[in-house]
Amino acid sequence: MITSALQWIGDSNGYLELVDQRKLPVSSVKLPCRDTDLLYDAIKTLAVRGAPAIGVAAGYGLVLALQRVVDKDLPQALAHLQEQAAYLADSRPTAVNLFWALDRVRQRAEALVAAQPQAQTSELLNGVWREAQAICQEDIDMCERIGRNGAAFVKEGSGVLTHCNAGALATAGQGTALSLFFAAHQAGRQFTVYADETRPLLQGARLTAWELQQAGIACRLICDNMAGWVMKQGLVQAVVTGADRIAANGDAANKIGTYSLSILAREHGIPFYIAAPSSTFDLSTASGADIEIEQRNPEEITHIQGVQTAPEAIGTFNPAFDVVDAANITAIVTERGVIERPTVERVKAHLQ
Amino acid sequence: MITSALQWIGDSNGYLELVDQRKLPVSSVKLPCRDTDLLYDAIKTLAVRGAPAIGVAAGYGLVLALQRVVDKDLPQALAHLQEQAAYLADSRPTAVNLFWALDRVRQRAEALVAAQPQAQTSELLNGVWREAQAICQEDIDMCERIGRNGAAFVKEGSGVLTHCNAGALATAGQGTALSLFFAAHQAGRQFTVYADETRPLLQGARLTAWELQQAGIACRLICDNMAGWVMKQGLVQAVVTGADRIAANGDAANKIGTYSLSILAREHGIPFYIAAPSSTFDLSTASGADIEIEQRNPEEITHIQGVQTAPEAIGTFNPAFDVVDAANITAIVTERGVIERPTVERVKAHLQ
Repeated sequence: MITSALQWIGDSNGYLELVDQRKLPVSSVKLPCRDTDLLYDAIKTLAVRGAPAIGVAAGYGLVLALQRVVDKDLPQALAHLQEQAAYLADSRPTAVNLFWALDRVRQRAEALVAAQPQAQTSELLNGVWREAQAICQEDIDMCERIGRNGAAFVKEGSGVLTHCNAGALATAGQGTALSLFFAAHQAGRQFTVYADETRPLLQGARLTAWELQQAGIACRLICDNMAGWVMKQGLVQAVVTGADRIAANGDAANKIGTYSLSILAREHGIPFYIAAPSSTFDLSTASGADIEIEQRNPEEITHIQGVQTAPEAIGTFNPAFDVVDAANITAIVTERGVIERPTVERVKAHLQ
Repeated sequence: MITSALQWIGDSNGYLELVDQRKLPVSSVKLPCRDTDLLYDAIKTLAVRGAPAIGVAAGYGLVLALQRVVDKDLPQALAHLQEQAAYLADSRPTAVNLFWALDRVRQRAEALVAAQPQAQTSELLNGVWREAQAICQEDIDMCERIGRNGAAFVKEGSGVLTHCNAGALATAGQGTALSLFFAAHQAGRQFTVYADETRPLLQGARLTAWELQQAGIACRLICDNMAGWVMKQGLVQAVVTGADRIAANGDAANKIGTYSLSILAREHGIPFYIAAPSSTFDLSTASGADIEIEQRNPEEITHIQGVQTAPEAIGTFNPAFDVVDAANITAIVTERGVIERPTVERVKAHLQ
């Protein structure tokens, strides 16, 4: 079974159900969200995470907001929705999909009110719910297409290696990188996924391993430093990761550790695939050298799940991301298709 | 200040003082050992670890054993020593240095008794203590020589990267790989050590980072998957690790993750050094392909310091070691000198 980050239960009067990712992998708990305060908290505390999932959740958040004011008149209801959109935008300060989805639903609401100023508030609620559903369905379709476009890279009897979590838990659908695995599994193929635990935040151990286990896909969890040796043993025939941002020349920023994997894969003659929505491309970034790398909190390294593992006040170096050179990427898979051996020209052609 | 794993306090009637490594890095506590039961427990529960340190501790353990029977006659005392040697040998079943040191001290005691059957037991105690001191001093000298032989590889103003703990805490002296850093530091050189945290057991975070901090050497702790990116940023000019076993052709087994580092170092044009005592060579092993790699407990991966980080019953792959190809080793540093670009012939010549 593939477990997405969230789903909407019922019609426009329904509610949003999240997988509470704070509790994974120790327990699998659903978190029903019936108001924006709970959703704000869920986004802020990472009960729901992953850019696409946050966007979808925020869109539905404005449905929850409107449910509370369905007895008010249309201007009052719209004003409440606008205020709640600003409130939810504050839950994760740097989440582009969050802002994008809130803007999209708010603008849709404003357009509906402008077009039919005499409508009932319940009609606005229905319209807003349909927009949120559209965002959700687009995300599901995007994931499914990425999986279909890349599934052939996951060969029968092979080992595939992934890093971090680019899975269903990051989307409303079946994920991006993991979507290839889910599609190959649905096609009846047998294979084993080597999942890097992905220090410092352990998304691989906590989320990817859990997702694969739920889906019935063979998984072997490894520490990040084992990946090269696993390749050397001939256990891996492909590496598939997601991406956080892809430059115009195909250089791809992703979770720290991905760069090392790309070098190790090339050393062992193993193809290296990136799977991500086409919205991940940022054509205003010429190459990976122009991508700024966030340095994160030292405590992520000196403590693990709250337990101190290093001396007090030790120096650290904690980059959140690194960048894979386009030259070391065998192909980038998007919902539009596949870019083999990415170059500026091929990326441009793919996105046109 | 360099903190070794242990030191003997006083004369033959003294006691063994260990750094309790179970408590590091949260607190630094000395553990006085005045009897073999406490020492057995300390070895078994990893209060003292590292092959050389365990050997030295075991040698002193037989001094502690004899102290209890100094009022008995010589045959009774020797019998007790022999019995306690067998007891201590059981504390870590696969520790070669442990068996070697116990055998050496026991044989020395047997020789002393055979040579002077009418001696006092207190004379035997003195003889046994001197043998244990000799083992300890040889270890201190070995460490110091390795440091002196390799210190030139740690350049002024450079960054150096290490993995796991081949430090003073693994020896009675100033360590093996870390000995190069201590020697360069004592020579007044400024440099920064990037210390891999070294999952699964975090020896880098818990021990290496602590040792460097104690010694006043600049240290930046990183997660293992950051090493390649640190190299790409030009922050590292040399990699230095220890070794657990070196084959006749120079292939070197060391803590899992070392293999990946050797590939990444070569990719970035960074020299890769192994520092280890010459006793680490096993000429009966032709190459790394003949070294069996121990698979360890899945819980080391699914739990960190007792905290569950992965789903129940997930598959794992947990090799304790991997093997660096001699072709990717710039030089091996031992107490005898330096083997540049190791080959069968150069290893043989070095050990003769």
